[in-house]
Amino acid sequence: MNLPDVQSQPDLRQIPIPAVGIAPVEVPIRFGDGRAPASASVGLFTDLAPDVKGTHMSRMVELIMAWRREPVTAATLFALLDETRSRLGARTARVSVAFRHFVEKGAPVTGKAALVPYDVELLAGVEDDERQLGWRLGAVVTTLCPCSEAISDYGAHNQRGTLSVATAFRDTRELPLVDGFLEQLEQLGSCPLYTLLKRPDEKWVTEAAYRTPKFVEDVLRDAVLWLQAQPEIGWFAVKVSNDESIHPHNAVAYYDRALVDPQWTRPALFWWDHRL
Amino acid sequence: MNLPDVQSQPDLRQIPIPAVGIAPVEVPIRFGDGRAPASASVGLFTDLAPDVKGTHMSRMVELIMAWRREPVTAATLFALLDETRSRLGARTARVSVAFRHFVEKGAPVTGKAALVPYDVELLAGVEDDERQLGWRLGAVVTTLCPCSEAISDYGAHNQRGTLSVATAFRDTRELPLVDGFLEQLEQLGSCPLYTLLKRPDEKWVTEAAYRTPKFVEDVLRDAVLWLQAQPEIGWFAVKVSNDESIHPHNAVAYYDRALVDPQWTRPALFWWDHRL
Amino acid sequence: MNLPDVQSQPDLRQIPIPAVGIAPVEVPIRFGDGRAPASASVGLFTDLAPDVKGTHMSRMVELIMAWRREPVTAATLFALLDETRSRLGARTARVSVAFRHFVEKGAPVTGKAALVPYDVELLAGVEDDERQLGWRLGAVVTTLCPCSEAISDYGAHNQRGTLSVATAFRDTRELPLVDGFLEQLEQLGSCPLYTLLKRPDEKWVTEAAYRTPKFVEDVLRDAVLWLQAQPEIGWFAVKVSNDESIHPHNAVAYYDRALVDPQWTRPALFWWDHRL
Amino acid sequence: MNLPDVQSQPDLRQIPIPAVGIAPVEVPIRFGDGRAPASASVGLFTDLAPDVKGTHMSRMVELIMAWRREPVTAATLFALLDETRSRLGARTARVSVAFRHFVEKGAPVTGKAALVPYDVELLAGVEDDERQLGWRLGAVVTTLCPCSEAISDYGAHNQRGTLSVATAFRDTRELPLVDGFLEQLEQLGSCPLYTLLKRPDEKWVTEAAYRTPKFVEDVLRDAVLWLQAQPEIGWFAVKVSNDESIHPHNAVAYYDRALVDPQWTRPALFWWDHRL
Repeated sequence: MNLPDVQSQPDLRQIPIPAVGIAPVEVPIRFGDGRAPASASVGLFTDLAPDVKGTHMSRMVELIMAWRREPVTAATLFALLDETRSRLGARTARVSVAFRHFVEKGAPVTGKAALVPYDVELLAGVEDDERQLGWRLGAVVTTLCPCSEAISDYGAHNQRGTLSVATAFRDTRELPLVDGFLEQLEQLGSCPLYTLLKRPDEKWVTEAAYRTPKFVEDVLRDAVLWLQAQPEIGWFAVKVSNDESIHPHNAVAYYDRALVDPQWTRPALFWWDHRL
Repeated sequence: MNLPDVQSQPDLRQIPIPAVGIAPVEVPIRFGDGRAPASASVGLFTDLAPDVKGTHMSRMVELIMAWRREPVTAATLFALLDETRSRLGARTARVSVAFRHFVEKGAPVTGKAALVPYDVELLAGVEDDERQLGWRLGAVVTTLCPCSEAISDYGAHNQRGTLSVATAFRDTRELPLVDGFLEQLEQLGSCPLYTLLKRPDEKWVTEAAYRTPKFVEDVLRDAVLWLQAQPEIGWFAVKVSNDESIHPHNAVAYYDRALVDPQWTRPALFWWDHRL
Repeated sequence: MNLPDVQSQPDLRQIPIPAVGIAPVEVPIRFGDGRAPASASVGLFTDLAPDVKGTHMSRMVELIMAWRREPVTAATLFALLDETRSRLGARTARVSVAFRHFVEKGAPVTGKAALVPYDVELLAGVEDDERQLGWRLGAVVTTLCPCSEAISDYGAHNQRGTLSVATAFRDTRELPLVDGFLEQLEQLGSCPLYTLLKRPDEKWVTEAAYRTPKFVEDVLRDAVLWLQAQPEIGWFAVKVSNDESIHPHNAVAYYDRALVDPQWTRPALFWWDHRL
Repeated sequence: MNLPDVQSQPDLRQIPIPAVGIAPVEVPIRFGDGRAPASASVGLFTDLAPDVKGTHMSRMVELIMAWRREPVTAATLFALLDETRSRLGARTARVSVAFRHFVEKGAPVTGKAALVPYDVELLAGVEDDERQLGWRLGAVVTTLCPCSEAISDYGAHNQRGTLSVATAFRDTRELPLVDGFLEQLEQLGSCPLYTLLKRPDEKWVTEAAYRTPKFVEDVLRDAVLWLQAQPEIGWFAVKVSNDESIHPHNAVAYYDRALVDPQWTRPALFWWDHRL
């Protein structure tokens, strides 16, 4: 059976396509460190030359299905991208891998351990000889309002706040350990969240938050200070969003290194920010 | 052009279908009280006899498009259902109309007014001579943890909690005023939410919540007590879900009058609970 | 440090609570069959006596964290529920475990294999001596419209349809194999979906769907016939929802065995349908 | 009562914040053209100087509540932004207004009319003397696969595709008419969607899609050609995402004028793309 290859037909419109591909492709992924596999959502994209009608998406599926058997590392992410470019005849390739990441955390007083879930998205892109590598991390924290505390005779409103950080790494050969990053980030709220807290722990987190009131602006700035001090981090952006317990809307603060310092640019090869 | 009516063909499987229809059909709706129109999501369903292959969904679209020009009342909801049965040759019809409802609320001290949004879903169903009418309302409130307050030297964790109530009315001739219901319900948390709060208001709500600590169980029970005391309400269910500010998961409590008191049954003609 | 146990205080409102607990608690879970672990969302609930102020949710976290190390089976689900009742002094307990399930499926012509993701939710409940066990499965299928095919000179509109099935098992000692169920269910659309299709496979699925036109009503009825024929299944409900490719809204059909045949009742101990 | 103004305290970290504010603030909005009001989600943000601890979010609520009484136009959006800068002492302000937009559309053969819903988000920003104005529009269309059609003896898989377009306008004094834009955009799929189709219409759309097969790449390129030809449009980005009816994942294509032509830059004052 000889079936025509419609995708390979010439295209006369002469419009180059920066990114075309498939998402979300859901697969279990595994890590090299004995950590439990995770269910991941993968996006894989290449550019398409102006004179070609369509890409071959089934090849991308094959590439993801082979890749997911390897441990997830910077090396295997870039190997996937290079093989994708080669199989698709592309100059550019982008991949994102989003999953739930679990960290075992001991309660602050009793030390009782339980898993805390975090959202992690790995991001990598290649164009000619350029390589970009980074991630998007989300840590949920307690935030306690400094204004509410200062003006009230007792109590202070507090709530869940989400601290989201996206970074590009200067060195693309290795991904830093995500657990260490998350541990640092969640210290920047009024108090970290815990899945398991017994009564002495609940007393501890309640009082710790009350002693550490922070606006979204405070969490954002402390995150910026910490991120600026990490030598391995190049570009980064931070968003803090508080699910205000006294309002039906959220308080949000945003920082993008590229908006503030012309030395930095947003990584154009990360897929995550191409959402409309 | 004579096009075959495939839907009207006989069906040999002899399986009656309790509900078949269309959702979400998005339309602007209007009210009779001068209130601003809202963007609504409508679901419309009928039963289908065991010997008919398919229903005629385009008629349902026409019915919704005509209905949405009328003010939304119990009478127009049931008129829609009766006409739907008639046009589709059905014995049963169900409708749900979900929209964002706005109430102007003054801040507790300064009195400054702003709109607060609520989720409302109207529910109506008919089967033979039986009529069922009710709604699902969601009020977001502050909840402050009694345990945290009792064990801590200062402060207490608090957060957004969602109080969801579904009710069936004894009398199906008229929908009660939704604003009055919402006003009562949101008194049952530790404090209502406000869109606009100036500093004296923020002090007030912070202290009010601290003086009114409530578990999800407390909010649930107070809602049950209040709902039991309303003579117009028959069956009801309540769910309270706290976005715990110290945990990544929620605390949830649920009450269904039909689970506790055999005198009541869940309204089988409401579409909302047929979700899988 | 002697911290008061506020939850154990007496409650004077005398309102029994059918279900109170925590959700979603996210944890990795594992299976006994060598299958890759999955990231799961767990809900765990007990009843609460009318004279007790609050439940002890931190115990539920501890129970989930211990349970998730065991392989997921009917036996370990009920062991979790029994221990939960014991630790919380409850008469009733409910658990739900939702996760992404992967099945390796070969393409219909080339046989090339790739993983297909499915949504699965395990459901179990106990009350006194009664045990209920079941699941909610979601299979996404192609549906092709019989009317469009019959009236058009060429082509027929088709789309993704979601076939959702909830079942209670007559025998609560063992969970049937989920893969076999999913394989049967997805035969009931116009054609199953595949993650990987090469050109000969794409030709095959296109033509298979065109030869098997089905309304939502057809998929629903075929699912009902199949489910009725399974001796291990008691109560069940089915929903089919088509993401109509010619409309902005969906076509939906629903069947609940309890609505059609008084011999069956909805399992009151499943948590999933207590959503408001 | 003299309550301290914590937000106005000095901040020693010296980190300027590009955007801080509130979202989503839900309000009904109205238009000047007799069109029905809509329920909108508003985000409002300003920059914050490096030496100030926090912004005053309650002023932003007041500004939104006053603004929403005016008809939504370019002039009232910029008046809101200018007043926001003035009230908050800011150099920069950004606003986004997302709502459901309804267009009455006649079926292609019978001409029967019904409303079709679209997602619209208005975007405006000011910094010093610079003004940026644009929108994000989403049109859902039918897409029919050219490969499936070419290789199959009969039929062709088709599905819902979402065509999302974000644009910045060269002239910020007036917003173009959104209806005309949507009408043009949805011509770029294999066929537009309709809420209401009678049998002759369904035949028409089925055959029209079959005669107009398009990959995501085709829809994207046709959108790019059309957008390039509009003199009022400066920067734009387009995303097409197909809910593939034969796969569980989507096919996605993306174009950003700034990625392809160095003459253009992404509008840094639009809030929508600052999502992490």
